[in-house]
Parts: sequence; structure tokens; C-alpha cells
Amino acid sequence: MKRESRLVRWIWWAVVVTAFFLVGFSIGWLAKRSDAATNNHKALSKYLKEFMNEMQTDQIREHLRKFTRLPHLAGTEQNLKYAEQIMKEWQDFGLDSVEMVPYDILLSYPNKSQPNYISIVDHIGNEVFNTSLAEPVPQGYEDISNIVPPYSAYSPKGHPEGDLVYVNYGRTEDFIQLKREMDIDVTGKIVIVRYGKIFRGNKVKNAMLAGAKGVIMFSDPADYWATGVQPYPDGWNLPGGGVQRGNVLNLNGAGDPLTPGYPAKEYTFRLNLEEGVGLPKIPVHPIGFHDAIHLLKNMGGQIPPNNWKGALNVSYKTGPGFTEDFHSHKVRINIHSNNQVTRIYNVIGKIRGALEPDRYVILGGHRDAWVFGGIDPMSGAAVVHETVRSAGKLLRKGWRPRRTVIFASWDAEEFGLLGSTEWAEDNARLLQERAVAYINADSAIEGMYTLRVDCTPSMHTLVYDITKQITSPEEGEEGVSLYESWHKRDNWTNDRDAPRISKLGSGSDFEAYFIRLGIAAGRARYTKNKKTERYSSYPVYHSVYETFEIVEKFYDPTFRRLRAVAQVRGGLIFLLADSQVLPLDATEYADSLRKYAQSIAHLAQTNTEQMEMYKVSFEPLFSAVENFTAAASDFHERLQTLNRKDPLQVRIMNDQLMYLERAFIDPLGLPGRPFYRHVIFAPSSHNKYAGESFPGIYDALFDIENSADPEKAWQEVKRQISIAAFTVNAAAVTLTPPA
Amino acid sequence: MKRESRLVRWIWWAVVVTAFFLVGFSIGWLAKRSDAATNNHKALSKYLKEFMNEMQTDQIREHLRKFTRLPHLAGTEQNLKYAEQIMKEWQDFGLDSVEMVPYDILLSYPNKSQPNYISIVDHIGNEVFNTSLAEPVPQGYEDISNIVPPYSAYSPKGHPEGDLVYVNYGRTEDFIQLKREMDIDVTGKIVIVRYGKIFRGNKVKNAMLAGAKGVIMFSDPADYWATGVQPYPDGWNLPGGGVQRGNVLNLNGAGDPLTPGYPAKEYTFRLNLEEGVGLPKIPVHPIGFHDAIHLLKNMGGQIPPNNWKGALNVSYKTGPGFTEDFHSHKVRINIHSNNQVTRIYNVIGKIRGALEPDRYVILGGHRDAWVFGGIDPMSGAAVVHETVRSAGKLLRKGWRPRRTVIFASWDAEEFGLLGSTEWAEDNARLLQERAVAYINADSAIEGMYTLRVDCTPSMHTLVYDITKQITSPEEGEEGVSLYESWHKRDNWTNDRDAPRISKLGSGSDFEAYFIRLGIAAGRARYTKNKKTERYSSYPVYHSVYETFEIVEKFYDPTFRRLRAVAQVRGGLIFLLADSQVLPLDATEYADSLRKYAQSIAHLAQTNTEQMEMYKVSFEPLFSAVENFTAAASDFHERLQTLNRKDPLQVRIMNDQLMYLERAFIDPLGLPGRPFYRHVIFAPSSHNKYAGESFPGIYDALFDIENSADPEKAWQEVKRQISIAAFTVNAAAVTLTPPA
Repeated sequence: MKRESRLVRWIWWAVVVTAFFLVGFSIGWLAKRSDAATNNHKALSKYLKEFMNEMQTDQIREHLRKFTRLPHLAGTEQNLKYAEQIMKEWQDFGLDSVEMVPYDILLSYPNKSQPNYISIVDHIGNEVFNTSLAEPVPQGYEDISNIVPPYSAYSPKGHPEGDLVYVNYGRTEDFIQLKREMDIDVTGKIVIVRYGKIFRGNKVKNAMLAGAKGVIMFSDPADYWATGVQPYPDGWNLPGGGVQRGNVLNLNGAGDPLTPGYPAKEYTFRLNLEEGVGLPKIPVHPIGFHDAIHLLKNMGGQIPPNNWKGALNVSYKTGPGFTEDFHSHKVRINIHSNNQVTRIYNVIGKIRGALEPDRYVILGGHRDAWVFGGIDPMSGAAVVHETVRSAGKLLRKGWRPRRTVIFASWDAEEFGLLGSTEWAEDNARLLQERAVAYINADSAIEGMYTLRVDCTPSMHTLVYDITKQITSPEEGEEGVSLYESWHKRDNWTNDRDAPRISKLGSGSDFEAYFIRLGIAAGRARYTKNKKTERYSSYPVYHSVYETFEIVEKFYDPTFRRLRAVAQVRGGLIFLLADSQVLPLDATEYADSLRKYAQSIAHLAQTNTEQMEMYKVSFEPLFSAVENFTAAASDFHERLQTLNRKDPLQVRIMNDQLMYLERAFIDPLGLPGRPFYRHVIFAPSSHNKYAGESFPGIYDALFDIENSADPEKAWQEVKRQISIAAFTVNAAAVTLTPPA
Repeated sequence: MKRESRLVRWIWWAVVVTAFFLVGFSIGWLAKRSDAATNNHKALSKYLKEFMNEMQTDQIREHLRKFTRLPHLAGTEQNLKYAEQIMKEWQDFGLDSVEMVPYDILLSYPNKSQPNYISIVDHIGNEVFNTSLAEPVPQGYEDISNIVPPYSAYSPKGHPEGDLVYVNYGRTEDFIQLKREMDIDVTGKIVIVRYGKIFRGNKVKNAMLAGAKGVIMFSDPADYWATGVQPYPDGWNLPGGGVQRGNVLNLNGAGDPLTPGYPAKEYTFRLNLEEGVGLPKIPVHPIGFHDAIHLLKNMGGQIPPNNWKGALNVSYKTGPGFTEDFHSHKVRINIHSNNQVTRIYNVIGKIRGALEPDRYVILGGHRDAWVFGGIDPMSGAAVVHETVRSAGKLLRKGWRPRRTVIFASWDAEEFGLLGSTEWAEDNARLLQERAVAYINADSAIEGMYTLRVDCTPSMHTLVYDITKQITSPEEGEEGVSLYESWHKRDNWTNDRDAPRISKLGSGSDFEAYFIRLGIAAGRARYTKNKKTERYSSYPVYHSVYETFEIVEKFYDPTFRRLRAVAQVRGGLIFLLADSQVLPLDATEYADSLRKYAQSIAHLAQTNTEQMEMYKVSFEPLFSAVENFTAAASDFHERLQTLNRKDPLQVRIMNDQLMYLERAFIDPLGLPGRPFYRHVIFAPSSHNKYAGESFPGIYDALFDIENSADPEKAWQEVKRQISIAAFTVNAAAVTLTPPA
């Protein structure tokens, strides 16, 4: 018995010891800091909720107020002061680091002692009419100095004089129509075009190519008046004395015109002005419609076709009170602006990633404004500021995102996306290897209707997800999600039952990140009702009337729309930075690629005969899209069974997601546009604002019916199809298992 | 007492339980599969030793014997057969996957029914002398068919006839000397140059630029005879009937001439032949010195300067038995070769990485040969084969490297590095994101003296480390390491007390990987004594005399030299693939950068006056090198304290090491050479074989004293210094902490 009891006791001991060992082992095993554990979904969504709830309408209002009191044009002292203030406040909010990053770039300013203007000149050379030298300053801002008068940045100096020819919006098709239907040659003439439809730089380029010796741009009420709305300050329409400023460059993504491809540092080699990239060679000047009407009456009998008639040319032909007659007078553009290398300042703030500090999620928007920047860009900058404040709060509560978040306040966007492009050039290597996504933060509002999102296809799902977690800012929609509110107002046309998301074009700071470097990118803002509101952008765009008050009184009195935009932009950043698995969706890219391929093939089909003759086939492209589709769906299937506890396996699949966008970059760039390197998306060659899909093929097909050498033209189409097919195939391979 | 004893017992229990808990906890903690644990240094060096010991001289001998029996020119059936055999054997050796990857590229072959040759033509058009149509076939190979006769691949068809001008090696400086000192214009003439000193494609380019209408190349005994050595088969010198084949392209890294920048797949768009990249526009043909002497006697009285006299022109001027006199006769080149798009095959084998399958270490070398390829390339291919066999053995023992290893048997290297470049283009995205290093495996032996290594600076330390673990193959050096043996024979000149390592030039398959994509690269082979053996490459280079026997009888009878090369190449691959922390050394890069900067600044100093006039300063470059040096040394200091148990932290620093080489890539490429994108290294513009450091600056400075527009020329120097400074600075930043 004793023996047995000893044995029992011994067994008992062994069991207990083993049990405690196992308990210890298990706790030891589990206690080891596991990647998966620190990133569990619950913690993520709790912090996301806190992050978004912390964003406050009052705060956004205050940020906007603070940064719109004074004009802060790029390169001016005031814009440096705002930069310093932002740096200081971001530090106070709790970012890990904030720095100013200067570049010395080519800017363009009017000459303070010799104003720019346009004259009507009689046959003995007298200026019988001059356009205004400035916009009437809005109430409350009368004592403000340093309001830059309306001008076209980078216009060369000069005093070209000549007959005036009206060319509608100055689009490629307008110049074609002018030549083909009206048989008017603009060589040696002054061209007048209305603002709208396309980027103003493209208008100037078209005029130059057509041989014009100067360009006048004006805002026609047909394009800059919303129906039933009063001019500012009684409403948000453009007053007759209001003028749209803007640069007239054709940079094609080069950044600073004197340092294409390289950051404009002190030691950087600079081209001579004459070699500068994208600089217009003829004088250009913008005017408002009170001035424009006088010039339009002086068109030497040119009768515009019906489809060219805006509000102004209709009225001058038919309206009452038409007394002036300057026929046979000439028009002179007087430009004394200076191009000068000037220091600008980006502000770069960072939150160091806890686990993957070498993965960057970027929220960037510009700070420089033509005048006060009430809408453009400070409605966006205020939103970024609030995002930083809220992130800082979270940091203090112990949160730290998995990846590094970079906040950027860009300078000199208005001069050709220069601050953001120089920084992209400066950090190209880091960005190429490490950037997960770029979210742009230009103007947060351009209308009062609903959300507008342009982004890379792989972000579609993420955008829908985040908007479902945000409340609609619209009155009477309490408890309705932003997604529902948006969906109701702007359903994706035909394609699918979801809110519309569009392609990225350009005209804002994401360009270098998306189109040159191939970083997944997106932008979000509040917009107008596209179906019913036909005016261009928003009426007071780039005028002195972009004040704090126009936002507070008209666009977003409760600041709830801006908060909603802050939550969308901030939410995107949050999920991109903190999700264990990157919230990017390759299958959405596949769907978009199929759509784009069908659409470009459809476009080509108008030339079936020639396509047969030159043996042009889209088959390789369609087959590539099929390969991509299969690879994408396989990838996401494998993602389901990913062992999330293995940090390397997670990293490997995340890298595939991160580098997917990069796979569409062709290092050789698009024909003649070395800095536009994305094979799927590029700014349209005819309108920088618009995005074109398969731009290489599109440009090769453009106006091919009238090609001088059809054989050669169709060879180029074939070459571009081949490049597109290869690129899509190569992108597909990046999604397959890495070995 | 009972109570106390209970208490004691209780305490005793608690202690025991706690102890066991702690033991369990600790084991649990430690048992958790840790990255560091699986990769500990001991296991690594044990496996490395096994890997290298497994490599056998007999096996290498057998591989070489097997793959040199028949001619296997790129695009021929036999080369496909060898590809299939290699694929099959690699599969048998145990690789995880092996595949054939075909491309359809432009190749060039002599016309079988109309041979190429050169004639001396008398004044009525009779061919009074014709060069040989083939080399005398070596003994034992008399019945072999498909030996391609000597030709210059890609020479256009044609029959240019004209006076003969001798231009030494056809180097840039030779043409300059011809013009400046001898005042001879080669326009419309046939140029004859001797092989050696520079890549033959550069000779042809120079002749074209000078206006010649045809080029003849010959091997002069002065350049292709080693002293005291008999011609093959009695020794390893080139027989008088032996001729060097070779392509005469100037591709500048473009790959297939018809598909620059893109892989030559079935659907790929192809340029027309006339637009093809790098194709010579004038007929070219190579001859041996038995034929050359007849032509050299026909130079119309041209008296070469002393420094141009090889063995042949000296002898014909002064030697006895000089009876021919073809003066006033002309020379005609008869070329009937065809360019044709032909299918080639790379063989790609893989070992999947255990922990980081998405990190690639590549060992690649070509398989195609001009004839048997006894040295070039099969001495290298045999070494790769043995490396694969040995790796397969290790795999079966349970070893699996941390990273993926890729073995490549390239096709069509002899036609312009085409197989390797097409594959690089095809996989550019994967390689850019994932490739750790590329080790090249062309000819493993070109001499019998010591080791020769050319590699990126960051591999210096690794090369020294591995060679210390390998035994010298030299007789009488048992127990001496390869490092010591090498060190003794070829110490780094002046600089440091270590064996010499050189820059990478080009002329082999690493080019696209290193110069275009920026992947750390290196090559190793056995070489001659550079100080005493002054002949060019090795005498029988690219002739029919490159047989198995020349290796077995002369170059490496014991096959120990080839085994040593296998161990170097294999050892590099092993350590790059399996070390937990990548064995790359940024501080070595810093040292090299400093040397290069000093050397290019020194070169410029010959023009001090002009440098002052145009304000040219190397200061930004030196300052960038300082920044890089500091960043590199900080990086390696941080590496010391890296927590090797944290897989993400290890990966992050490894990524910094991997992407360091990539940081030197300028996406815009070098001026006029878009596929040469490495700012620190490029093939010399004057000799593809040679590597130039800071090639952009070098080319801008070249012959600047004689520039037509010095202002513009010096501006270009300044631009290139600025680009170099920026690139080095940007590379430095990639080494700093990522956030």
C-alpha cells in the first residue's frame, strides 16, 4: 500500500508539475508580443471611432478662420509665417517630428510698379479702353495689403497687339473647329477664350500651337454663375469684377520648371529661363466678365457658331444698350510680370509607425493660396489641421499606428504643384520603396450637395467602408451614413449600385505621387450636383472672393460638411496606417481595367477598316486583363488564409498590395511626357484636370482619321497596346505567390 | 509545530509550482519559433561548409565535358537541347521549380550558301586575294557540323569597296590621333583595326562616326599571343587561322534591338529593322592574322606611328620574305549575313525561400556559345551546374535558405546580353522590389594565376569573408586560403592591404541587373597575371579552339581552379540567401564613393582656369559623400544593436541594405543612354567592357578642351555634378532610420 500511495503521490506530483508547466508555457507563448495581438480588430475600430469623434466642427471653423485672415501667396512672407505657425501647432498637437523643407523654385509675380492689363487700341495707338488692375476688394478686407492682382502666372513679359479671335474654351476641338468650319487662322492674332472645361495651361498651349501671339482668358457667367444665386457677398456667384488667377504652365509633371526631375536645392543645377519646362512663350492675361464684354465687342465681325455662345457673346450680339464699336481696333496685352527663383517651404510632420516605421501613409495638401484661400486650399488645410490635432490626442492616449503617417503642408501648388513635386523628387527613393498610399487634401468643399471621391481602383472598397462609418453632414439626415447619403445623391452610372467614384485626373498635389511614382492615391471633397449645376468648378474659384465668410455663410455654415470630409480623409489615413493587412483591393483594379480596356477598344472600333488593314488587335490587352483578374482573385483568396500571427508572411502580402500600384509604372514614361509614367492613368493631353485611362493608347488614337501618315499612326497604336498589355501582365505577376 | 510544518510545506509547494511555472514560461517563451533561432550562425556555417565541400572537381569536369561536345549557338536546335537537358538535370538535382522562358529576339547568322569574306580587288575588279571562309577545325572535331564560321554578328549585308586605313585598336583616341597627327580622313574608306583594348562594338561605332564604309577586325599576335606559349593544340595561343567572333552592336543596355525596354514576347510590338537599336550601318568582318597580314600589306603607303605597331605591321614593314605588293589595290568586304527574329530560351530554376520567399538572390550565366564554348561560357555554366547540384543535396538534408535563390541559364548573351536583358525587362517589377543581389557566372577561367573579382562596393567585405573560407586551388598551397593566395598575387594597389577588387564594367549578363535596375552585383573568375601577361582577354577567345580540351590540358587540369570559382560564386549566393542580416557593407560603398569623387575632381582639375571661369565646383559632391559616409557608419552601428529576434526589425534593416544599390538609379538615365541608369557606375562610353565611375560627369568632361561650345560643355559638367551630388545624398538618406 505504501508503495502504491507513493506511486500515486508521485503521479499526482508529476501531473501538477506538468499542469503548471503547461500553464506557464502557454502564458509564455501567448505573452510574447504578437503582431496580430497588438492589431486586433477591436482595438482598431475603437481607436478609429475615437479618432473620428475627436474631430470637431468648431475646431475646423477656427483653423479655417485663423489661416484665411491674410493673403498667403507662395514665396511670400505671410505664407512662411503660416508655415511656421502650422509647424508649431503640429508640434503642440503631439506629432513625433515636424520640419520645414525649403526649395528654391521658379515663381512668377506681377511687377508691383507696372501693372498688367489689356487695352483696346485705336488706329493711332491710343489705349481707348483698359481692363481693371484689380478686383474690388470684399467688405472687411479693405485694409489688407499684398492682395496680388489677377494675373496668369509665368506669362512672359510683352506687349503683343493684334486682332482678337474668340476660340470658345480654347480646347483642342475648338481650335480644330475654328480652322475647319470657320477657316480662321489665328497666326499673329490675340486669342480670347473663356475659362472652364479644361485646364487653362492647355488653352494657352493650344493657342501657342495655333500661332497666336497672346491669350486673354475670361470668366463667362454661363460658366461661372449658378442659377438663382447672387454674386458675392450676397451669394456665392462670381461678381463681374472677379477674376480667376492661375498658372498657365504645361509642366506635364516636371515640377519646378528649372530643375525637372531633381529637387530644387541650393546646389541643384538650374536650366536657363529659356530652357525652362512648360513655360508659355506668349503673354497671357485673365479678366472678369465686366471687362471681357468690352473686348468681345471688338472681334472684327467674327461670328461664333451657336455652340460657342456663352452668356456674354450672346448678349453683345443681341442685347440692348450696345453702344460701343471698336471694330477695326486692335487689342494689346501688357505684361510686366517677373519670373524669379524664390524660396518656398513645405511643412512635413510625422508619426512614427510602431511596427513598420518604414511604411509611409501620407496626407498632403497645399497651404499657398492666390489670395485668402477661403476654399482653395484652406478648407482642405483646416481639415488636415484637425486631423493632426485628433491624431495627436490619440497618441497621448497610447495609440500609435502600425505604420508611419506623414502629414504635409505643401507650398506653391498654385504654381504647378511645385512644393509637392519637389518633395517627391527629393524623396523618390524612399517613397518608391516605402509609400503605401497618398491621400490628397486640397479644397475640402466645392459645392453643397454630396461627397466626391476620385481614387485609384484599389481604394474603392476602403472608401465605401469608411463612409459607412461616418454620419451624413446633411440636415435631416441624422442617423444616416455618409455612404447612404452619397449613394442616394450620386449613384454609379449604370455600372453598379454604389456611390460613384471617379478616376484621378490632375491639377492637385497627388500628381507626382500617383502618376510619376505609382503610389496608390485618392482625394475626397464635398461637391455640387453635377447633373443640375453646370458651372465650372465653383464660381469664385481663385478670386479674391474666396474668403472665410463664403464658407461660413454659404458653403458650410455648420462646418459639418468639412468635418465629414475630415473624417473621410482622416479615416482613410487611419485604416491605411493601422490595419494589419492593407485595406487595398486588387479585384477592384481588375474590374476597372476591364472597363477601361473595353472602352478604349470601343473607341478604336470607329476605324474598323483601318484596324483590319494594319492588323491592330486589342486581344493581348484583353488577355492581360484576364490574367490580372485571375491573379487578383487568387491573391485575395490566399489572403483569407494568411497566417496573421506570422509578421513576415503578413509583411510579404502587404508588400504585394503596396507595390501593386507601382507595377503600373513604366520607367520610360508616356510618349513625350517622361514624368507621366503610369500606364493606366494620366492627365489627359488635352486637359490636365481630367484623367485618361490607357493614356498611351488614347493619345495614339486621337484624331487618327486625320493623320498625315496613317501607317505610322497605327503602328504607334499597336506599340501602345503592346505596352499596355505587357504592363497589365507584369502587374498580374506581382500578385502571384512570390516564389 | 504542525501548523508550521504545514506552512513550510505550503511555501515549499508554492516555490516548486512557481519554479516549474517559470521553467515552463521560459521554455514557452524561447520555444516560440524565433527568426534568430532558425538562422543561428552555427547552422549557417555548418551548411555553408557542407555546401562548398559537396562541390567536386570531377563533377565540374563532367559537366564541362557534357556541355561542350557540340556547337550551341543561340537560336540553334542544339542550344535548345542543352537547355532541356539543364532543365531536366536541375529538376533531378532537386530544385523546387525549373522552367524554360522563351523570347523572340533579333539574331544574326551568316548565310549558309553565300559565305562572308574579304577580298583584295585589282583595278579591273578581280578578287586577287580572299580571306578564309572558316577556321581550321581542331583535331577530334572534324566531323562536327554547324560550326558557325567567324563573323561579326549584326553586320548589315553589303559589298563596300575602298582603300584600307589602319586605325590601331579603333579607339576614340586612335581616331583622334589619326585625324590630328596623320590628317587622314576615313570617309568612304575601309577601316582595319586590331582586336583588343576595347569592346568591338565601340570600334565599329567609332569607324561609323568617322565616316568609314566598312570595318575589318583582326587579331594581332601582339595582342593574342602569350609569350612562350604554343598555338593550340600544342599550347593555348591563338593559331594564325583562328578568328574572334562577336557581335558589333551598340545597344547601351537596350536588350533585343527591336523591343527596347520591353520583353520580346509573341505579342510585343517590334520596331522595323531600320529603327532597331544599336545596329551597325556598315559591313563588318573579323579575320585571323594569317589573313590580316595580306591586307595590312595593302595600306596604300600609310605609315602607322610607332605606338600603333603590333606584331603584324612591324613585321610587314621590316621583315624578310615580303614579296606581295597590292598597293593601289582596293579591299572589298562581302557580307551576306541575315538578321532574323529567332526564339531563344532561358532556363530559370528556383529554391523557394523558407522565411522570405519574396527576396531573390540570383546566380545567372549564359549557355549560348559561339562554337563549343569550352571557356566562354561553359566553364562558367559547369560551375553553376555544380552549384545547383550541391544546393540540391543540401535541400535533401533539410536545409532551405531564408530567401529565394534563382538560378539562370541565359541564352543569346553573345548577341548583346539578350536573354538576360529580356528576362530583366520581363520581371523588372519583381526584381526592383525583391532582388537582393545578382552574381554573374560567365567564363569561370581566363588565366591560371589567381582570382579576379569585380563587384559593387557593398560586397567587398563579403567577398573577402568567403574567400577566407575557401582553399587555394594552387599546387603547393595546401592549407592556404584562397584569400591569402589571391592577396599574395594581386594586392590592392596603394590603397589598402587586401586583394584587389575592381569595378564592374559590362560585356556580360549582370548589366541589366546592375546598371539598369540597381541590384547589387558581382562576378568572380580565375584570371591571368595582369602585370606580366599583356595579351587581351585570353588568346583563343571566341574562336573554334575554345574546347573542353583547352581547359583540361592547360587552364585547369585538376579542375581545382574551377571548383574554387564555384565555391566563391556559390558561397556568395549562399550567404546572401541565408544570412539573417544581409552581408552587405555600406561603409565600403562610402569608401569607394570618396575615391571616385576624388578621382573625377582630379580629372577636372586639369582645366582649373575654365573651372573658375564657369564656376564649376565639386564641393556639393564631396559634401554628399561625407553625408553618405556618416549615414553608412551610423547604419552599421545601429545594426550592431538590432534586435535580431524581431523579424520586422530585421526585415526593415535588410530592406535598407537591399535597396541601397537601387538608390543610385536615376530613372532618367544617363544622357542619351536611357537604359544605363546607375549614377555611380556605367560601361564606359568608349569601351563597353570597362566600368566608369561617375559616368555622367566623366562623359561631360571628356575631351572638353576641344569642345566647340565650352560654355555649354561646362554647364553640362555642372549639371552632372549636381545630379551625382543629389543621388549620393538621396542614397545616404535611405540609410537613416526610416522614421
